[in-house]
Amino acid sequence: MSGNSPTVENLTNMADVWEAYREELGEVEAQVHKNLNSEASLINTIANQIMVSGGKRIRPLLLILSARLCGYIQREFLLLGSLIEYIHTATLLHDDVLDEADLRRGEKTARCIWGNHASILVGDYLYSQAMTQIASFHNHGFNEALADACRKMTEGEVLQLCANSRPEITEPEYLQIVEYKTATLVAASCKIGATVGGATPAEQSALYRFGLNLGMAFQLADDCLDYLADGARLGKTLGKDIRQGMVTLPLLHLFQTCKDEDRTWIKSKVQSRDIDEKDLTTIIEYMHSHGSLTYALGRAQEYISAASLDLEPFPNNTAKRALEIVSGYMVNRDQ
Amino acid sequence: MSGNSPTVENLTNMADVWEAYREELGEVEAQVHKNLNSEASLINTIANQIMVSGGKRIRPLLLILSARLCGYIQREFLLLGSLIEYIHTATLLHDDVLDEADLRRGEKTARCIWGNHASILVGDYLYSQAMTQIASFHNHGFNEALADACRKMTEGEVLQLCANSRPEITEPEYLQIVEYKTATLVAASCKIGATVGGATPAEQSALYRFGLNLGMAFQLADDCLDYLADGARLGKTLGKDIRQGMVTLPLLHLFQTCKDEDRTWIKSKVQSRDIDEKDLTTIIEYMHSHGSLTYALGRAQEYISAASLDLEPFPNNTAKRALEIVSGYMVNRDQ
Repeated sequence: MSGNSPTVENLTNMADVWEAYREELGEVEAQVHKNLNSEASLINTIANQIMVSGGKRIRPLLLILSARLCGYIQREFLLLGSLIEYIHTATLLHDDVLDEADLRRGEKTARCIWGNHASILVGDYLYSQAMTQIASFHNHGFNEALADACRKMTEGEVLQLCANSRPEITEPEYLQIVEYKTATLVAASCKIGATVGGATPAEQSALYRFGLNLGMAFQLADDCLDYLADGARLGKTLGKDIRQGMVTLPLLHLFQTCKDEDRTWIKSKVQSRDIDEKDLTTIIEYMHSHGSLTYALGRAQEYISAASLDLEPFPNNTAKRALEIVSGYMVNRDQ
Repeated sequence: MSGNSPTVENLTNMADVWEAYREELGEVEAQVHKNLNSEASLINTIANQIMVSGGKRIRPLLLILSARLCGYIQREFLLLGSLIEYIHTATLLHDDVLDEADLRRGEKTARCIWGNHASILVGDYLYSQAMTQIASFHNHGFNEALADACRKMTEGEVLQLCANSRPEITEPEYLQIVEYKTATLVAASCKIGATVGGATPAEQSALYRFGLNLGMAFQLADDCLDYLADGARLGKTLGKDIRQGMVTLPLLHLFQTCKDEDRTWIKSKVQSRDIDEKDLTTIIEYMHSHGSLTYALGRAQEYISAASLDLEPFPNNTAKRALEIVSGYMVNRDQ
């Protein structure tokens, strides 16, 4: 790919990284929309709308950076970044149906506009379109990485469903849910990128682990944000997770460290999902006094440290500097 | 595979065919259950339950017969039959959620027992488990055939959703829905079987077309059964399709051939879905007087004739005789 090559000195924060890889991410974006070409025009309408209002494309960025870390990326492989986004978006569509969510990123959800039927089916379409297009590369590693991630994501969702309203689950049980639900697709993005860049099997494994650690850190930091109000997020509704009976690491820590009587109260609140503002304030105060948020953020930071070790064997190039910046961004998304 | 080889003379009806391939179908069945080994035990419980109460395994049978028509089938490839059934079952799970169905084959549906959440997620699991396992064969043809079928099935469902309550859709529009929704997975089963049996590309294409024609015939015959009561189906609820606003070929034919005033009445009934027994009896009487059921069954028979032509170039072996019997069974399932 052409353009002014970013250099290690250029990159100091996340904005620099987005700018440095803007052209390649633009090509991913073009592919995202080019391949929503179903004969069922309703699919294209819904899928385009949800993809436009889509997130930051962090997974395609990781794919590009992993490829560049190991060698380089040819334009034709940027399609792969768009397929990862299809899978990610498919899970959001199904999640919104499962959670009966009306809003996502401040916009009405697809299920709210077009109904649950269309959301389930467009999710199914994005899954199968991604599998169809990835098969066309005739690369077994690509197929296996993507299918494996899809399977684990679904298993993670079911494990989460079974853990719902159960603050007594263990930390390893919770971490497995996070790994399956969130981290495996990030890991697959990095591994596929490594393969594109001509990585050895050992390098592919290292970047898979790197992505897994990043995904874990991302989710644990996200869990904490749901209980943390600060300037940038003022006015944001807190406690969304607990109101859905969802048990995350800060709550798990609080539940394991608090007094018996508080444990009984917390359990009844999680199970009934009857949580008013006063209850939430009490729970957040408890989390602060028991160090539950500090603990969960510390665990997130540990995963970032592990991710940093995974990068060590690679040469110090621009992509490596960018991956380090992305790592920091995972646990501090206000930068 | 061992056992007493069935001969052409042995096979006269569908019961003979099931018996002749009982051992291989038993192996498919074993694989169906062996690979429901998720770490989320709820997935295994639900998936096993729905697979046990599953259908006749007509798609795995077609895969086996297509392989045997072109050569033979090694035991390891029987796993492929189970993966086709995973995909088929995934669509049933999602369909039951979409249709808010409480019963399937006389049993409570998964959504009725475990809820919509679990049904959607177990459907997603079966899709992704099938894609993961098929990828392990490292055969691009298998991956492409299965992914393509999944994508078209979803597109077919969306096209059907858009055609709902619209008896004015054209016959080609309707036939495309049937092709995508039903026929492509049957076609993929035959094509994958052909590949397993060592078929040439031309033979693979012929068997894909054969499966497509069989699938079309199957669905059109099924459409008619919803308006046809007879001895074997006494007590069966008729008119399930029209009560869901679903427009199928007999209704389409009636709508195109009836008087203007009847057309207005039919349209209002389909749109309101307010159809009592008297309305249904009237509609069925109209279908008989306008020859709509005869027409639709005739179209089904035409697809069977086309399927028969697709088989012509193949040698006259036992598998071919079995495929001809299966063809007949598609439009006359009371045999």
